[in-house]
Amino acid sequence: MVNVAIIGASGYTGVELARILCNHPHVRLTAATSRQYAGQPLAQVFPNLRKKTDLICENLSTQELCARADLFFTAVPHKTAMDIVPDLLAAGKKVVDLSADFRLRDVAVYEQWYQKHSAADLLQEAIYGLPELYRELIRNSRLTANPGCYPTSIILALAPLLKAGAIDPRSIIADSKSGTSGAGRAAQVGSLFCEVNDGFRAYKVGGTHRHLPEIEQEINTFLPEPVRISFTPHLLPISRGILSTIYAQLQPEFQQADVSLLYEQMYAPEPFIRLLADNNFPATQYVRGSNFCDIGFKIDSRTGRIIIMSAIDNIVKGATGQAVQNMNLMCGFTETAGLETAPFFP
Amino acid sequence: MVNVAIIGASGYTGVELARILCNHPHVRLTAATSRQYAGQPLAQVFPNLRKKTDLICENLSTQELCARADLFFTAVPHKTAMDIVPDLLAAGKKVVDLSADFRLRDVAVYEQWYQKHSAADLLQEAIYGLPELYRELIRNSRLTANPGCYPTSIILALAPLLKAGAIDPRSIIADSKSGTSGAGRAAQVGSLFCEVNDGFRAYKVGGTHRHLPEIEQEINTFLPEPVRISFTPHLLPISRGILSTIYAQLQPEFQQADVSLLYEQMYAPEPFIRLLADNNFPATQYVRGSNFCDIGFKIDSRTGRIIIMSAIDNIVKGATGQAVQNMNLMCGFTETAGLETAPFFP
Amino acid sequence: MVNVAIIGASGYTGVELARILCNHPHVRLTAATSRQYAGQPLAQVFPNLRKKTDLICENLSTQELCARADLFFTAVPHKTAMDIVPDLLAAGKKVVDLSADFRLRDVAVYEQWYQKHSAADLLQEAIYGLPELYRELIRNSRLTANPGCYPTSIILALAPLLKAGAIDPRSIIADSKSGTSGAGRAAQVGSLFCEVNDGFRAYKVGGTHRHLPEIEQEINTFLPEPVRISFTPHLLPISRGILSTIYAQLQPEFQQADVSLLYEQMYAPEPFIRLLADNNFPATQYVRGSNFCDIGFKIDSRTGRIIIMSAIDNIVKGATGQAVQNMNLMCGFTETAGLETAPFFP
Amino acid sequence: MVNVAIIGASGYTGVELARILCNHPHVRLTAATSRQYAGQPLAQVFPNLRKKTDLICENLSTQELCARADLFFTAVPHKTAMDIVPDLLAAGKKVVDLSADFRLRDVAVYEQWYQKHSAADLLQEAIYGLPELYRELIRNSRLTANPGCYPTSIILALAPLLKAGAIDPRSIIADSKSGTSGAGRAAQVGSLFCEVNDGFRAYKVGGTHRHLPEIEQEINTFLPEPVRISFTPHLLPISRGILSTIYAQLQPEFQQADVSLLYEQMYAPEPFIRLLADNNFPATQYVRGSNFCDIGFKIDSRTGRIIIMSAIDNIVKGATGQAVQNMNLMCGFTETAGLETAPFFP
Repeated sequence: MVNVAIIGASGYTGVELARILCNHPHVRLTAATSRQYAGQPLAQVFPNLRKKTDLICENLSTQELCARADLFFTAVPHKTAMDIVPDLLAAGKKVVDLSADFRLRDVAVYEQWYQKHSAADLLQEAIYGLPELYRELIRNSRLTANPGCYPTSIILALAPLLKAGAIDPRSIIADSKSGTSGAGRAAQVGSLFCEVNDGFRAYKVGGTHRHLPEIEQEINTFLPEPVRISFTPHLLPISRGILSTIYAQLQPEFQQADVSLLYEQMYAPEPFIRLLADNNFPATQYVRGSNFCDIGFKIDSRTGRIIIMSAIDNIVKGATGQAVQNMNLMCGFTETAGLETAPFFP
Repeated sequence: MVNVAIIGASGYTGVELARILCNHPHVRLTAATSRQYAGQPLAQVFPNLRKKTDLICENLSTQELCARADLFFTAVPHKTAMDIVPDLLAAGKKVVDLSADFRLRDVAVYEQWYQKHSAADLLQEAIYGLPELYRELIRNSRLTANPGCYPTSIILALAPLLKAGAIDPRSIIADSKSGTSGAGRAAQVGSLFCEVNDGFRAYKVGGTHRHLPEIEQEINTFLPEPVRISFTPHLLPISRGILSTIYAQLQPEFQQADVSLLYEQMYAPEPFIRLLADNNFPATQYVRGSNFCDIGFKIDSRTGRIIIMSAIDNIVKGATGQAVQNMNLMCGFTETAGLETAPFFP
Repeated sequence: MVNVAIIGASGYTGVELARILCNHPHVRLTAATSRQYAGQPLAQVFPNLRKKTDLICENLSTQELCARADLFFTAVPHKTAMDIVPDLLAAGKKVVDLSADFRLRDVAVYEQWYQKHSAADLLQEAIYGLPELYRELIRNSRLTANPGCYPTSIILALAPLLKAGAIDPRSIIADSKSGTSGAGRAAQVGSLFCEVNDGFRAYKVGGTHRHLPEIEQEINTFLPEPVRISFTPHLLPISRGILSTIYAQLQPEFQQADVSLLYEQMYAPEPFIRLLADNNFPATQYVRGSNFCDIGFKIDSRTGRIIIMSAIDNIVKGATGQAVQNMNLMCGFTETAGLETAPFFP
Repeated sequence: MVNVAIIGASGYTGVELARILCNHPHVRLTAATSRQYAGQPLAQVFPNLRKKTDLICENLSTQELCARADLFFTAVPHKTAMDIVPDLLAAGKKVVDLSADFRLRDVAVYEQWYQKHSAADLLQEAIYGLPELYRELIRNSRLTANPGCYPTSIILALAPLLKAGAIDPRSIIADSKSGTSGAGRAAQVGSLFCEVNDGFRAYKVGGTHRHLPEIEQEINTFLPEPVRISFTPHLLPISRGILSTIYAQLQPEFQQADVSLLYEQMYAPEPFIRLLADNNFPATQYVRGSNFCDIGFKIDSRTGRIIIMSAIDNIVKGATGQAVQNMNLMCGFTETAGLETAPFFP
């Protein structure tokens, strides 16, 4: 049993990490920090956890934290993460960071989209925690930068095509739709039930969402010359789930069977990717609560475009489940440990 | 007062037509037909209409219908409409047809996407009922083909750009999301609450949705050579509303101010189009229950693309409200009569 | 045309008042106050109002307000209302107050449930604004205390039975369920989409909700000796609507037909009450967006109880619509003016 | 490993049984029958099960079924169950029946509420599968009648009070609200998304719901003389969850601490019951996807009533989870096996 701790347990990522970890066969959850709820049982902050954990939220110093666990999930906002992670690493701990602070390898890009980076030396060391792309590196990593939710859905959908040069990368348009849990648990008017319910909208339109550089970074690892893509996030009136609908010009030599083969070659052995049969398209309700990423595609011969669709649960494969998958790799556990329950429907 | 009737009153389009017409200042709703509910008060089929209408659903012959009204809304499925409409016209009646039967001017295209057309001679006469494009023709029409919901949202968003040659039409991709009322009131598993709630998916992907030829027909009226576009419909877990997110390559000589001007020139006088200020994007919840189409756009200088977003209530501006707007024009009423209430939020 | 103003326009009650008033045939909306949004167009705060109103939110003194309008809707929190209303009345204005400050006639009861009352002298003058009970008094009133949403749904459902002595009043249990708009637009965790969506709960259980004294006050006007009743509010994952399910022991001499007659005698002439036929039960989705109160009942011969159900739109008949109905009475307009649109479904 | 089969796998109960069983440590799911989907992979009917099960839906005779498994879940409608179960028992199999056919011990009551019973001789043998009441009997049973969803929520909430004589049983009123999955997966207008979404209503009002005799049967086991109670079901616009709000006159000698003690004495050792602290009330969103029943109460000293609230997931503790709990008892497994995952929130 490995002792693990959650730093920043009061958000939706925190509660979901606790939910998964309290049934994990190989770890013991030993601390959950929260300034706001310090002193309160975690199961009082999130009553779904009653009878599943006795943990009390605490406001701990890094030193106290280091005495508690050997692997840490930092589920704090960007900027806060970069203040904590170096000390944890210095104490010999492993870290899965769920913030954006260590996802971008180029400090200049980070500083353009976020703010000054105070631990830039770690950017080269941190491994982008998408196991389907970086499994072996993650195994040997002490710092995994857990990917953003939108990037996970988009990069997994595109990787086999990019790898094979099957699409024109400059033509990529990702139209993504996310459930409201992606906005976090902060009390703000825009996330109120009455503002979101029975409605739908785009936001951060026109290449302004901070997940964009992360998406482009990973797309560009497959390309000789970097491209810029279009990405539009939307807010769905659902709690969990991201569906990305991605358009690209297909190279004319690729047919339906070729594309299927590309996906199968890359993803058939993957425990958490489910490839859909022809004319089957993913839906968020079929991955709900699970670490699966469902991928389907359709070639539109009228326009020469391919439309790839992927569905994930934004707080599982898009955040906490992937974080546990990364932990499993970093700790030498079975990769699927703690993540084996089926999606719940309805 | 003009007597009007609804043929096919038992669907969501039927009830919404009744809702609007029962408060319309210049018409009297004199008949509502329904085979399934014949003999039942319409307000029993749709209890929201209690105290608003005493109409009894009837199963009427065309001859009986003709004695009842001077203008007809045919809210029946395609194929059924083409069986009824010619007789109504022959009897000297005006028709706003909400089916797809008279929307496509080219019978070959119709028969490719639907089935054999039995009233093809009316295709050239029928006016595509988008008042923002065909107002004067509609005024003089006896048969208006009320546009589909998706086409309304997409064509209105694109028209000013196409007219000015501001975008590369071959690059158009329309990613549209519709509320579930668009699927109608038929009892089918895919429309059950538990199948739709807290979920999201695409359907009819890859250029297979029947609204596509209608969209392309109208786009191509602006172009010297016809193009084919990409269109992907999605199913939203909301009752009402369509949001279309539309991508196109912007011609480099057009800047933000130029594009704004194009929209203002075409739409500033329009009573039912609301142009949004820079960095304001439409949302379905702000047009709910109204005949408005909200349009916003954003230029992405990183990729040279423009993203146009439009929001309508799919069963108002996307169906019944537009039908009433068309009726107002055909009958010489004020165009906004009966359609003046504000959208309801929340 | 009468000039009217909304004091406190930034909540869901404010936007809904504006929505109704901007289509009202006899009034002109001349001011909307909001400290938080002062200087912003109301249609920017609530984009559904675009093209329907040009009003700018203002932070006005009472003196400035008095120059603007002759009738005021005070849509501010309790305690704030009692600071403003006396000055408006002193200036000769009429007021429909949507807060709780003038609903309770007994200052001791008010102070027990709220806090010290600074304008207690107005409590005897204020008329409880339930037109179905106090129509004539409202007509002559300069200060109408607009009822709470839950009380409206419960009192209307019970009045005919209480008046006739048809039930044992000590046995009354009101189990009420409200949409989330009832919680207002304040940014608080408990009202976030993810907290409310796909969930359901009771709150303020056991006689602790502040609407209780108001309900009991009105029930007790029908009784020789005051009773206490049970009332449990619940939070529904919908935006609008209250359904109250009310239980009481029926006096054995009353049968189905007798009870129906009681309701018809009292409510048949009422424009906004719809009595349902036997075995028809109200649903919030059939009153959505309207000023209707739908009432149905069922006698359970097994237990001797009657179950009465009522449905209203909590922000229309439960707040703003009723406020406009009161204004119509106070200004001598047709009682239904501005409130005639049908409920929207779906 | 015990081989188990699901008879009637095409409803929401079927898919949820499969979801739980495919991760159960001690069983192997060997057959899933469905007339409608025979020949189709279960994971095609319910795509959430992709990669979790390879089972093909089959239309099997009882004889074929008996060759496949040793314990059967009959998830078929009432009347169908009574045709199958006797043969399974005759073949020496164990059965957890999820229909209503074996829940009522008195054949006369069954035939009054349902129809003629063709296997009435089994009614006395069948054990009512509420482990918190009948654990030891279930262990030794070969036929467990899995309780209805509403009865589970109501009986568990009342049992400790009834056992101690703490309430007047004639005063019991159960106001219950259920998610839409309770209506099953049949294609019917009343279950369509647009009919249910953003709405709320009661149904089967006044002692007419078929779960009532089952509730009264179990309540009356605690009483010297049988009583009749009031029960009103409502339809919530959520997929999963039941909240019951139950009212009863508390005997004056019982105070808060006494009542708490009654619940603790009976339920403290129960793995699936969570007792809430004072002034904490259950919510369906905190039991979602789990086998927990959360119970809270509040004494209203103003009226002398106690209000007890319970929350369950209607398709887990209200159906499939409880069925697996019963199977665990009948097979000698750990009672919580396969049911240990925490509820998911949000």
